[in-house]
Amino acid sequence: MKARIHVTLKPSVLDPQGQTIQRAVETLGFQGIEDLRQGKYFELTLADTLSAEQAQVMVREIAASVLANPVIEEFNVELE
Amino acid sequence: MKARIHVTLKPSVLDPQGQTIQRAVETLGFQGIEDLRQGKYFELTLADTLSAEQAQVMVREIAASVLANPVIEEFNVELE
Repeated sequence: MKARIHVTLKPSVLDPQGQTIQRAVETLGFQGIEDLRQGKYFELTLADTLSAEQAQVMVREIAASVLANPVIEEFNVELE
Repeated sequence: MKARIHVTLKPSVLDPQGQTIQRAVETLGFQGIEDLRQGKYFELTLADTLSAEQAQVMVREIAASVLANPVIEEFNVELE
């Protein structure tokens, strides 16, 4: 089973890294970008012995405790 | 229009950062993780004046030239 986790800054939190990338991209001549935000992405391969429910619970716990900082970030988990 | 870009290391490239995170997660007692790989994630908000084809071409160009290192990374673009 695969789990995909996206960790992004909360919409209310300023993203200076994303702004810097946006300016760099615009400097190169690309136009029409209204906003650019950067996040983190994790791909987990899970043992097949885990049920979908167990995997969902475990992966959410890992995301909340290790991968994301819940004060400023939010995360999203997809299993397949 | 929103564009989502995932940048990940090519499968043949070692991911020491992902391995370190995997070990940290296992140290905390989580079991059943066979592999963990880290990538980058970008969310772009594009001007509505761009057509879907223009956006697709531009975003792929941005990903290839700025966001990813094509020697060791691959990327994936989704528009919605």
